[in-house]
Amino acid sequence: MSPDAPAHLSEEEIINLVASLAGGAGGELTVGIGDDCAVLGGAQAGLVVTTDLLVQGVHFDLGLMSPSDVGHRSMAANLSDLAAMGAEPAWGFLSLGLPAHPQASFVSELVGSMVSQGRAYGLKLAGGDTVKSPVVVINLCLLGAMGNLAPVLRSGGLLGDAVCVTGLLGGSGAGLAWLQAGRDPEDPAAAGAVAAHQRPTPRVEAGRALAESGQVHAMMDLSDGLASDLPRLARASGLGAAVEAELVPIDPAAMAVAQALEGDALGWALAGGEDFELMFTCDPGRVELLAQLVAEATGGLAVSQVGRLTPGPGVTLIRQGKEEPITYMGFDHFRESAP
Amino acid sequence: MSPDAPAHLSEEEIINLVASLAGGAGGELTVGIGDDCAVLGGAQAGLVVTTDLLVQGVHFDLGLMSPSDVGHRSMAANLSDLAAMGAEPAWGFLSLGLPAHPQASFVSELVGSMVSQGRAYGLKLAGGDTVKSPVVVINLCLLGAMGNLAPVLRSGGLLGDAVCVTGLLGGSGAGLAWLQAGRDPEDPAAAGAVAAHQRPTPRVEAGRALAESGQVHAMMDLSDGLASDLPRLARASGLGAAVEAELVPIDPAAMAVAQALEGDALGWALAGGEDFELMFTCDPGRVELLAQLVAEATGGLAVSQVGRLTPGPGVTLIRQGKEEPITYMGFDHFRESAP
Repeated sequence: MSPDAPAHLSEEEIINLVASLAGGAGGELTVGIGDDCAVLGGAQAGLVVTTDLLVQGVHFDLGLMSPSDVGHRSMAANLSDLAAMGAEPAWGFLSLGLPAHPQASFVSELVGSMVSQGRAYGLKLAGGDTVKSPVVVINLCLLGAMGNLAPVLRSGGLLGDAVCVTGLLGGSGAGLAWLQAGRDPEDPAAAGAVAAHQRPTPRVEAGRALAESGQVHAMMDLSDGLASDLPRLARASGLGAAVEAELVPIDPAAMAVAQALEGDALGWALAGGEDFELMFTCDPGRVELLAQLVAEATGGLAVSQVGRLTPGPGVTLIRQGKEEPITYMGFDHFRESAP
Repeated sequence: MSPDAPAHLSEEEIINLVASLAGGAGGELTVGIGDDCAVLGGAQAGLVVTTDLLVQGVHFDLGLMSPSDVGHRSMAANLSDLAAMGAEPAWGFLSLGLPAHPQASFVSELVGSMVSQGRAYGLKLAGGDTVKSPVVVINLCLLGAMGNLAPVLRSGGLLGDAVCVTGLLGGSGAGLAWLQAGRDPEDPAAAGAVAAHQRPTPRVEAGRALAESGQVHAMMDLSDGLASDLPRLARASGLGAAVEAELVPIDPAAMAVAQALEGDALGWALAGGEDFELMFTCDPGRVELLAQLVAEATGGLAVSQVGRLTPGPGVTLIRQGKEEPITYMGFDHFRESAP
């Protein structure tokens, strides 16, 4: 039996298969596979856990990113999952696969950057594993503490809710496109986009402020892009959604890159992924209040309403008065390479 | 900068580098990188965490092991780390890297076996990640609960302590040698050794009983073999150790394989690794009592005293009246491939 015989399980199908084998939530597990974090119960109530596996050549290209960027980015992506529950980062566990003869400077830059990014948000690297591997493999498993707040799930969205996002979208996708086109990463026209891709900022304080408000119904982080992640949130909430293209806060850095490369800034904002902003839903009357709380907690991070939750089914994009369905336009590693 | 430029960090040196970057124990972290598990403190007191990364071609060969064996073995290896602290398995997080076009049956067998092995010891798979990877990559991160017991560390050994092991040693190394020699895995002469390699039993009940006794000074699991792991325990305790070759409980299954392959059963018992038995130290007057407690908790698992903790430095093997130093004979993935 070989793992690479032809069969076409998508990432989503594999996750569903693993979840069904694991037996889903229940007992002392409040939320199992399928949210940004698992929510533990029983003696471990108040603890949320997330884990992410990153593989060289699939998730990062050491030709396009320094070891320090890879370290920063992998920690930021995981912190973003904790932020999406409203948790305080607490403990991290790093598994590192390295080719034979690893250089001390490579390990120092990668891990040093990860540790300092974690420390900036109160996370302590507490353990791990180091093994040989044909390519660099990084697994981070992070524990976050809710204190006495309830974690904000994907599934709590209500019909008519405003769908909001923090910050600006599309920068990371544009930065990646710039680097993949072989353009100069130091070019001032693309510096913002390249930085958004290489050194994203996890929205830990914003997530915590939103959870503390008690006014957020559903939340998740934008790791694959609005076009993939909003259908997930809507479906988890048993609803659909509509997004207005004109309301999507496109990163000016993405527009600059779009101009230079003749690319599609809205496309990056919807489907480029890896912006690691937060998406949440709330009563439309609370958007302004929540925007103010987030701005105060973060020193000025914007909140934009981009759409609303609808009876569904499905998620639509409203562009120049026309509605079109949004399907999964995001990043599915398995589907992407299927014939 | 490339991760495979020539430089010769060993696995131990990488672990030390990562530990120094992470900042070691302190604050709410009771035990950091360097024991079988991290021991958390503060609001997460009583929780221990272990993580292990397994890479196809480095840690397992899908030509020699079925997906179900790989799943069983990876979960057993991690449960063994929890057992070595005396913890009750609680929660598991699985990251899975799979080549493109994964087969449903491959995923089902691998994960199904992992889930059922975990469930047998009270562990619930609560979350994870699934990504594409050029080779199969498995990362498990397990949380164990100490209840109101103190975790048993590597560092608590006292001068004059008896060094004891559970069960029999060398079976796994012999089974691997048998498979690598291309011999029939169904051959009754090697069935015990092959099973020891493919489907090891984590000593969760024994570890718990030993921790509950309050009589064990230091404990760890034998993942790399006595020749590597005893020097680690002795050094962590600030001591040396002496092992008597005649006292090492060599698995009869290893002796059968040694006869057939003209192999070295004592070598497998000392340095073959992956037996996942427990090694612990205690007052020499308590060995009998602890052996009885382990036998009761497990339905008959043996405990053998193999040596004692000495002023050191270093660990010696006493064979036919002669003492010889034991250096790191175990499995160091990085060192092994250095020129």
